[in-house]
Amino acid sequence: MKVLLIDINARVINHWAKGLGNLLKSGEVSIHNGSLESFEPNGLLKSIVSPGNSFGFLGGGFDLAIQEYFGGSLFERYVRYKLMHSYVPVTNCTVIPLNQFSRDQFQYLLHIPTVVTPVVPDYDRRDPVHSGYRIVFDVTWNALHFPPSETEQLVLPGLCTGYAGVPIPIACKAMCFAIRLFYLKSILSQDLINTMIMCFMGYQYEPFISEDCLMECQKVGIDWDTMHRFNPHEDPLDSILPSGY
Amino acid sequence: MKVLLIDINARVINHWAKGLGNLLKSGEVSIHNGSLESFEPNGLLKSIVSPGNSFGFLGGGFDLAIQEYFGGSLFERYVRYKLMHSYVPVTNCTVIPLNQFSRDQFQYLLHIPTVVTPVVPDYDRRDPVHSGYRIVFDVTWNALHFPPSETEQLVLPGLCTGYAGVPIPIACKAMCFAIRLFYLKSILSQDLINTMIMCFMGYQYEPFISEDCLMECQKVGIDWDTMHRFNPHEDPLDSILPSGY
Repeated sequence: MKVLLIDINARVINHWAKGLGNLLKSGEVSIHNGSLESFEPNGLLKSIVSPGNSFGFLGGGFDLAIQEYFGGSLFERYVRYKLMHSYVPVTNCTVIPLNQFSRDQFQYLLHIPTVVTPVVPDYDRRDPVHSGYRIVFDVTWNALHFPPSETEQLVLPGLCTGYAGVPIPIACKAMCFAIRLFYLKSILSQDLINTMIMCFMGYQYEPFISEDCLMECQKVGIDWDTMHRFNPHEDPLDSILPSGY
Repeated sequence: MKVLLIDINARVINHWAKGLGNLLKSGEVSIHNGSLESFEPNGLLKSIVSPGNSFGFLGGGFDLAIQEYFGGSLFERYVRYKLMHSYVPVTNCTVIPLNQFSRDQFQYLLHIPTVVTPVVPDYDRRDPVHSGYRIVFDVTWNALHFPPSETEQLVLPGLCTGYAGVPIPIACKAMCFAIRLFYLKSILSQDLINTMIMCFMGYQYEPFISEDCLMECQKVGIDWDTMHRFNPHEDPLDSILPSGY
């Protein structure tokens, strides 16, 4: 599955471009600076992420663009019906087939709340890891893992940079980390990927880290101590990822 | 579906008993003060909630009791295999059929991380709503909504009162609120239930609240202003729920 990142904000685009390592060059990930309407169909079967709220309304930001693109208020009613008009916790992903609203090879909407409602930003500058890096990582992680297997391209906007209030550098770093780990699954063990996630968020817990990880780190050129001391606010992603990826 | 709340901590039991309104009397919810082993099978087909971590290890608290009850380290391996050894964000529910590990009418494990790892409590006393009430509500809400339809009884321990570090009065209040709303679905509109959730968490947002809610509140005896000003730290649940439920 390829990833297409799309946003109208040039700062988001720049932070993605800096954080994605070799994924742009390899063609796994591409970036589009513009609106959903300005994107040209490319023949790939797509799932698109709706960075929603817990009640399924599509009234602002990228959700509003999605609503307008797929059929207006009738489409919003359809999404809320598919969510059974019920509350969905932040980060939880619901896969909604677009059915009669499908267009331009888009076949699934992944509805993932990033806010309960747009009224209070959850981001707390006293706790950027918990209220910023972690929530954006979690939403991106679910976005990458929930698409139906026939999805050829996943379309993602900048996550949590709007009403959730997460600063762009934080949101983009967490997104890039989740995306890079996703593509590293073919060359790294699940154990090492899990350990990297723990270290990124500051939740490293010895009993959950297998002894083989240390040897695997050496093999792929990651310094164990650097990874253990990783601070997402200060350290570059490249310092905890294998070089060249 | 009936609910069975089980915990070895008498303080948890007392807070549940105070917060559940008429649900104990009506028999929808029952409470067991004791261990999983001390519970007598009652013939009902059960799903049980594992208040887990993001990596599926079952090494502490109620998870350890679950591990020991269903087959020890072999069962832990099975759960991690079913989670594909992958990271699962806090609050996300994975339904795991117990299959060969089934006993005493338990048929499904609902794995819901309440912590990433047990190393740092997420609860922050500067922000009890976001890091306490909301996370416990979300875990309970998912626990109530994900069981397969054949589930006759859902077994739940005290959530987030261990490694997550949420104080018992907060955790029990959020659990009781989610459980009471779940049983109110047959008499209240989904819109009013959604509004109650927003007010409980302090996320009330006018455009998401339908005008019919005001009339419905009057009909069921909820004071609109009291609900709007609700503070979970100070106000009793009965002040935002219809009387008699």
